[in-house]
Amino acid sequence: MTDLIAALRGILPESGLITDPVERTAFERDWRGLYNHPALCVALPQTTAQVSDIIKLCAQHGAAIVPQGGNTGLVGGGVPSPDGKQIVLSLNRMRQIRELDLLGDTITVEAGVTLQAVQEAAAAAGRLFPVSLGAEGTAQIGGVISTNAGGVQVLSYGSMRAQVLGLEVVLADGTVWDGLRALRKDNTGFDLKQLFTGAEGTLGIITAACLKLYPAVTARATALAGVASVTGALKLFQALRAEAGPALTLCEFISGAAMDLAAGYVPAGRAPFTAPAYVLTELSAHGAGQDVGGALEAVLAAALEDGTAAEALIAQSGRERADFLALREAIPEGELREGGAIKHDISVPLSKIPEMVAAVETLMADTYPDCRLSVFGHLGDGNLHMNVRPPVGQSLAGLTDRKATITLAVERLAVALGGSFSAEHGIGQIRLPGMTAHKSTVELGLMRALKLALDPQNRLNPGKVIPKDTNTNA
Amino acid sequence: MTDLIAALRGILPESGLITDPVERTAFERDWRGLYNHPALCVALPQTTAQVSDIIKLCAQHGAAIVPQGGNTGLVGGGVPSPDGKQIVLSLNRMRQIRELDLLGDTITVEAGVTLQAVQEAAAAAGRLFPVSLGAEGTAQIGGVISTNAGGVQVLSYGSMRAQVLGLEVVLADGTVWDGLRALRKDNTGFDLKQLFTGAEGTLGIITAACLKLYPAVTARATALAGVASVTGALKLFQALRAEAGPALTLCEFISGAAMDLAAGYVPAGRAPFTAPAYVLTELSAHGAGQDVGGALEAVLAAALEDGTAAEALIAQSGRERADFLALREAIPEGELREGGAIKHDISVPLSKIPEMVAAVETLMADTYPDCRLSVFGHLGDGNLHMNVRPPVGQSLAGLTDRKATITLAVERLAVALGGSFSAEHGIGQIRLPGMTAHKSTVELGLMRALKLALDPQNRLNPGKVIPKDTNTNA
Repeated sequence: MTDLIAALRGILPESGLITDPVERTAFERDWRGLYNHPALCVALPQTTAQVSDIIKLCAQHGAAIVPQGGNTGLVGGGVPSPDGKQIVLSLNRMRQIRELDLLGDTITVEAGVTLQAVQEAAAAAGRLFPVSLGAEGTAQIGGVISTNAGGVQVLSYGSMRAQVLGLEVVLADGTVWDGLRALRKDNTGFDLKQLFTGAEGTLGIITAACLKLYPAVTARATALAGVASVTGALKLFQALRAEAGPALTLCEFISGAAMDLAAGYVPAGRAPFTAPAYVLTELSAHGAGQDVGGALEAVLAAALEDGTAAEALIAQSGRERADFLALREAIPEGELREGGAIKHDISVPLSKIPEMVAAVETLMADTYPDCRLSVFGHLGDGNLHMNVRPPVGQSLAGLTDRKATITLAVERLAVALGGSFSAEHGIGQIRLPGMTAHKSTVELGLMRALKLALDPQNRLNPGKVIPKDTNTNA
Repeated sequence: MTDLIAALRGILPESGLITDPVERTAFERDWRGLYNHPALCVALPQTTAQVSDIIKLCAQHGAAIVPQGGNTGLVGGGVPSPDGKQIVLSLNRMRQIRELDLLGDTITVEAGVTLQAVQEAAAAAGRLFPVSLGAEGTAQIGGVISTNAGGVQVLSYGSMRAQVLGLEVVLADGTVWDGLRALRKDNTGFDLKQLFTGAEGTLGIITAACLKLYPAVTARATALAGVASVTGALKLFQALRAEAGPALTLCEFISGAAMDLAAGYVPAGRAPFTAPAYVLTELSAHGAGQDVGGALEAVLAAALEDGTAAEALIAQSGRERADFLALREAIPEGELREGGAIKHDISVPLSKIPEMVAAVETLMADTYPDCRLSVFGHLGDGNLHMNVRPPVGQSLAGLTDRKATITLAVERLAVALGGSFSAEHGIGQIRLPGMTAHKSTVELGLMRALKLALDPQNRLNPGKVIPKDTNTNA
């Protein structure tokens, strides 16, 4: 492979190619520390033409390519798989905002622009870019699109897929597909951008995207409510949605156990009140003609009246709002600091949420009574993180031998209820057993047919998304 | 092919197979009367299993399949192409509403259910299904998904693609893909439903779908405003969007010429006032906390004040609202009755709309000064119908020899501005020349690769969407 590295040196500046094992580490290891396999080298192109050239050279030398954005993924999709002979293609240096069209409400950016930079560019122009998630300061647009990331505002605005109007993609043979359109409607043949969105870099490498912008939010009303159970939370969600429609932009569920974890890691050191479970919600107004504060008050008053909620606080200041949101954001940190957790990311139809929570509680009580459950997430999307924590005083390592069994059992419960075993995090490497266990032969066959059609040599992010076909060894 | 017909008789009841040439006519001819090629027969399955069996028999006998819904398409996508040896597979008899989940806000229906039946089922349950278009009483869900239909409310709710949560699809070999999920989030591999949505039946036959429902609209405010030009219309649109955000559910442009055409075919016989051009707009509230009437008044008052609008009427009753909407809906009828029109369905980035309109006006004035232009459509989507009418007193037939040239010229202007030559109607047969003229080799290559991967024998709706490859004769 020294030939390939020499050839890459010919097309990239010195700083654009990393071969030193120590410098490579940051690109080889995912941030959760679950995967760490050596790459041949790390290429850092600055232009789409360079991406194309790199891929052509890799094709000539029989090397595979792992596209990488901010490396904040949770499933090992953006780091090398153990197959070896892979180069990491980092989009870090493709950071241009190519166009901001305020009449059309679109922004065109290169793949390496961070999610936060897009949010900030939109805000500076009096617009909203609505996708928001914990890693937004580091996560890059190319990766956010490739994983169809979700976050806390999917409820009203949709996930990343819903924001993508156009893409520029380098294909497996190095050809550039220019699909960088800024159109709200375009029915001219197959909608190719849908194929690359959420494909985790296995069908092509996204180098730029044109995204939708929204009018700025003009007013917000945020509340934390205490409810008896997830069933009560769901009832409150329904009332909020009926009252607020698309203005309901946030509706998160936090179990009592998850809140206890979070409370230790926020400045206040505690939740503002205690309850068996919580709903964190926010209504957002676009424009002046909408009294979201009044709407939120009305729903909460009715919920307190009929017993759906036992307690409720509406944030009275930006500071108080930040405090409420910090509770939700602190849960993963609390999990990490209190011994770690086996993370699950299931979704079910909304009507099945109580059944799903009960089923997992039963599973844990019956089979793993020493482990602790931490349930929280995007209630309005039917997407709950049902994370399993080690017994008190033990580390996550103690669960290693049971990890695969627990995960498969939780996933099975979701799938049996018509649900998904990976609602927003994707497949990468970590969820491949789930693909084998839960997907039909027909569905896997379709995915393999698409992969073969677009990447016949299996050069783009091999070992991700699609499990090896044990029948054919492909 | 008598063998195939005999075999089909073996799996369908007598009424489920039409071979009589007279009875076949309604399935062979599109409703605009542009295409009329004989089918071998018309099969009318009642179940997904029958669809699968039909496709398997067609595969055995080397016959191709044209899936057909309500046969309301505008581009000849749902009727046989001249290649012959095709059977029409009508989804007419698959009319079950399989499930209505009010907690999850989803409805699961078979492909033959009409769009209007879905709207009505939603309304009866206190919900909204937002896709709305002229042919909704006849158009069927399978076809509406297969064409990714748009209509007048795309602005706020998105096109049909945005409503699809899950699909059941019969593949080219007769296998059934059960992707009928009711999930708001599911990132488990390639999002296959995106592939079949908008593919016009060329990649698989949609037999059922799970669709999103929305909270019912609780209040509406509708207005007709007179503006000086499309630039003024765009300025008014911007003000409406800034004020109303997602509550802006309708924003249609009607040129003076299009309004003159429409006015003759509404009960009132005239527009309520005359202006060089018009904007028809509506704000919709979901829930009580939103004063859409006040918001609309505020925007229109400001527009009258600063001269963006010269006149504006807010509908004071449901009757008056219906009168306003009837003006927009009467345009196609006016065109038809006044000599017909060469229809175009372009879209451009919003900021390019004035340039596009000016360019087409110049084209017509310079090259076709005798023809008349009728411009109207979905302003907020950048999607205008720029239809060309024959000279006064002449019929459309008189334009036959210039039709292809005019269409290509209008399409070219849109594409040159980064636009689409078919924003919402699709490709079918009529827009195949546009695919050849405007699509890149890379993009056509990707589409051909997908078609080959999913339908290697070219059995599903051949002769549609993808132009023949002149290099390979494929």
